[in-house]
Amino acid sequence: MTRTPPRRTLLGAAHLLDALLVFVPVALALDYVWHAPAAWVFTTSAIAIVPLAGLMGKATEHLAHRLGSGLGALLNATFGNAAELILAVIALRAGLHDLVKASITGSIIGNILLVFGLSALAGGLRREIQRFNRTAASLGATMLVLSAVALVVPAIFHQIATGDVAAAEHELSFEISLVLVATYALSLVFALKTHPHLYAGEAEEGGDAVPAHAWSIPRATALLVAATALVAWMSELLIGAVDETARQFGMSEVFVGVILVAVVGNAAEHSTAVLMALKDKMDLALHIAVGSSIQIALFVAPVLVFLSHALGPGPMDLLFTPLEVVSIAIAVGTIALISQDGETNWMEGVQLLAVYVILGMAFYFLPIPAAAGH
Amino acid sequence: MTRTPPRRTLLGAAHLLDALLVFVPVALALDYVWHAPAAWVFTTSAIAIVPLAGLMGKATEHLAHRLGSGLGALLNATFGNAAELILAVIALRAGLHDLVKASITGSIIGNILLVFGLSALAGGLRREIQRFNRTAASLGATMLVLSAVALVVPAIFHQIATGDVAAAEHELSFEISLVLVATYALSLVFALKTHPHLYAGEAEEGGDAVPAHAWSIPRATALLVAATALVAWMSELLIGAVDETARQFGMSEVFVGVILVAVVGNAAEHSTAVLMALKDKMDLALHIAVGSSIQIALFVAPVLVFLSHALGPGPMDLLFTPLEVVSIAIAVGTIALISQDGETNWMEGVQLLAVYVILGMAFYFLPIPAAAGH
Amino acid sequence: MTRTPPRRTLLGAAHLLDALLVFVPVALALDYVWHAPAAWVFTTSAIAIVPLAGLMGKATEHLAHRLGSGLGALLNATFGNAAELILAVIALRAGLHDLVKASITGSIIGNILLVFGLSALAGGLRREIQRFNRTAASLGATMLVLSAVALVVPAIFHQIATGDVAAAEHELSFEISLVLVATYALSLVFALKTHPHLYAGEAEEGGDAVPAHAWSIPRATALLVAATALVAWMSELLIGAVDETARQFGMSEVFVGVILVAVVGNAAEHSTAVLMALKDKMDLALHIAVGSSIQIALFVAPVLVFLSHALGPGPMDLLFTPLEVVSIAIAVGTIALISQDGETNWMEGVQLLAVYVILGMAFYFLPIPAAAGH
Repeated sequence: MTRTPPRRTLLGAAHLLDALLVFVPVALALDYVWHAPAAWVFTTSAIAIVPLAGLMGKATEHLAHRLGSGLGALLNATFGNAAELILAVIALRAGLHDLVKASITGSIIGNILLVFGLSALAGGLRREIQRFNRTAASLGATMLVLSAVALVVPAIFHQIATGDVAAAEHELSFEISLVLVATYALSLVFALKTHPHLYAGEAEEGGDAVPAHAWSIPRATALLVAATALVAWMSELLIGAVDETARQFGMSEVFVGVILVAVVGNAAEHSTAVLMALKDKMDLALHIAVGSSIQIALFVAPVLVFLSHALGPGPMDLLFTPLEVVSIAIAVGTIALISQDGETNWMEGVQLLAVYVILGMAFYFLPIPAAAGH
Repeated sequence: MTRTPPRRTLLGAAHLLDALLVFVPVALALDYVWHAPAAWVFTTSAIAIVPLAGLMGKATEHLAHRLGSGLGALLNATFGNAAELILAVIALRAGLHDLVKASITGSIIGNILLVFGLSALAGGLRREIQRFNRTAASLGATMLVLSAVALVVPAIFHQIATGDVAAAEHELSFEISLVLVATYALSLVFALKTHPHLYAGEAEEGGDAVPAHAWSIPRATALLVAATALVAWMSELLIGAVDETARQFGMSEVFVGVILVAVVGNAAEHSTAVLMALKDKMDLALHIAVGSSIQIALFVAPVLVFLSHALGPGPMDLLFTPLEVVSIAIAVGTIALISQDGETNWMEGVQLLAVYVILGMAFYFLPIPAAAGH
Repeated sequence: MTRTPPRRTLLGAAHLLDALLVFVPVALALDYVWHAPAAWVFTTSAIAIVPLAGLMGKATEHLAHRLGSGLGALLNATFGNAAELILAVIALRAGLHDLVKASITGSIIGNILLVFGLSALAGGLRREIQRFNRTAASLGATMLVLSAVALVVPAIFHQIATGDVAAAEHELSFEISLVLVATYALSLVFALKTHPHLYAGEAEEGGDAVPAHAWSIPRATALLVAATALVAWMSELLIGAVDETARQFGMSEVFVGVILVAVVGNAAEHSTAVLMALKDKMDLALHIAVGSSIQIALFVAPVLVFLSHALGPGPMDLLFTPLEVVSIAIAVGTIALISQDGETNWMEGVQLLAVYVILGMAFYFLPIPAAAGH
């Protein structure tokens, strides 16, 4: 379940992605040479992260292939959302907790409503109905629902508790993070040890994942390190420019995190899922949306809480804003419903996208003080 | 999905309905001749609307039959809830926005909990279990859930946002209405162009819908115009009497809208669905409940928002009260659950009705200032 | 559905349970002879209730067997949760309404998240996947969802209504209790008269329920009376010590009710369900969790409301705290999802338990004034 969803894209799309690497030097030049306005730096560094995240995924897969199934799978599982994690850590160090939490929310609702909505629409335009394996899908959906429930309990607690509960809330968030990470560790045992065959078909189906000539360990490592470093650098530029850009366009930090940052951080998965849907591999498209969301809820979110204690400036909690909680509930409820159903058509894709657009509008119109929340 | 659910009733029931037409002159006499108390006018005009709505449905179907499948289906789809729409427009012009929104809520929860509950109970009394096609049912249920989610986001936004957001809320409601109507247009493409066969079986199953001798176009048009005019007139009487009647019985505007007006506006569907259930056509009964609810959410609600801008007295938003939001969530969640299940029995009907009665009690006891809401 | 879930345990476990009867005299001695600290009395009386509840269940079954299917089933249905009911009545008379309501919540979420989570985990450790009959399971889940919805409407009403609505709330709670009890009566007709075969397989599957040599009516009656009296006595000790124990450990009344009292009151079912799961009878394990929860919602809760009017000190309402409402919603939503799915594995068990632990933490950290609620 929590195994890394495949990030490779089809040949043509891969070339297109690589071409976007030109935005790396452009972003650097705009910031350091031309001291361009924040919005330009924000946009170009955001675009530059997309191919770098794809490159990180590719290098991770080659390395995993070389390291053999056990260690390799573990690597895949922990580095699966590395680009999002790096971006979030940079934001964390800048003290932008609301932005970090918003990007967690955005990853979950974006994966489900936007990615799977686009997949259902794109795939459905060519076919009357697309079917997928109900059993595997609902196993994943059940886990996602339980993961999301665990994630949002602190936010519900906050809405309910009265009086001075700040200390209790930080302790609760920390302890829940421990439970989430322990659950994640067990989910790796599940995916890699006791039930690997559940995911075997998918790896094969993904097919041309690792090409005939896999990269050597030094080459894969070097590329992984380089891509990681560049993602971190681009994230610095992006986070440095986010505040001014947001103010300039009258957008709140939460809107930027939920919609913009989340789309950037997950762009590689997005393109893969849609391509799989076009090839009528809806099982895989659904697995990418669900698997990535589970990893965010059970691994990325608690790790960020721990890092906030270690790195400062202050501890981050898991208090999502009410609109975030509602959005997550809507998204996971929807994917659970669709999984049971066992089939999609283009109209369901349209509806998922309509819900995404409407939630995006609500985040956009939400006044900024309310977004700050607590 | 959004095709008009069949409104025709079986022979006996049709005669019974026609007999109710006598309430048209009675209501007029009570109001204009005898100046009777409001409660009398309210009751008689409400009863009079029931056969008129049935007549509108019948005339629409005959006309649709004459116009051929393309134009006819479109006519059916847009006139499907015409009686509710007229009633709501009259209330809108009287500035009774809470009543209008309450009747939207009431149509959705009434269709699902009351209509489908009665269907499951009535049909289940004669049979151990009634089965229906899971696949078609869950397709409809998924769309209904997504429609309802889109509809209630503004209300959730209102609960969450703080400060002076009235302007933002009206803009949000308006833009969401645009998304809803666009989704509705696409759903017509889905139902009439790309996936008509999904609904073909049902039209046939409905069977004796259009009798051997269809009415001529002039006759059908004349009857449609006459029935529409009379529905509007009766609605005027009903809306004019609603305020005094409600006060007299200590009921809030929201209670009247959710329970009374919604039952009147949907009475024709109600009887059809129950009759279908008695004939063990649970697919059709479920389709009527779900299809009518989708049409309310995606078409009637946004059209009323647009009309409120055009007709005045002021723009209507989509801010449902919290109890309305909760009720809609309960109703659509329930129908989604039951659709997955693929079968009903009389006890499930009892439970659906119990939930309807309990929600009705809650609306009844809700104090009037809270109902006014925002 | 609402038939009593089988309470008998396997041979070994039964002996273990019987051994716990030694805590009856220990608890009495601690309280009356040694005047031990409250925490000691609380703990020992709590443990003593577990085997007594098991004994009540066993005596009820033998008696039901002797009385024949009709009367016997009715006896089973009304005495199924007798131990919980007695404990709650004692708390009710002590005026501990929040504790009573918390134990209702705790029974529902404990049955679903803890009992079924442990069952899925324990059973799943030995097998890759455990399957159960989807159809029967989702019938039960649908009824549970509808029961829970009906139960929590008053709490939602309370959150929504403003102004002085205390009188309306008590009336609403009372009227809803009437609806719930009427629904329960109809559910007995369903389970015992119109659809008994749905449950026939289970009774058989439970197998060794009633041994070859059933107890005589006098013996079974005597044991039932004795066990009931002792449960009442132990409950007096437990309730008398709850306040001081809770204060001593810094726990709120709600936490004690939701977690501790609920676990004690349902321990017999808990052990049975896990044992059934170990024998790969997941249908039965699920039925115990779901059936017991339905009985709590439709029978125990409203009966307690009625008794509060009869016994004093004051009428109890059905206003659960927001965290209780959210927890019940999460629990019933989860079981509905899992029922549709038709299979479980150990990882789903882990996730259910993780959600239970996280909810338990939230109840623990919730400040005491907020818990008092309204």
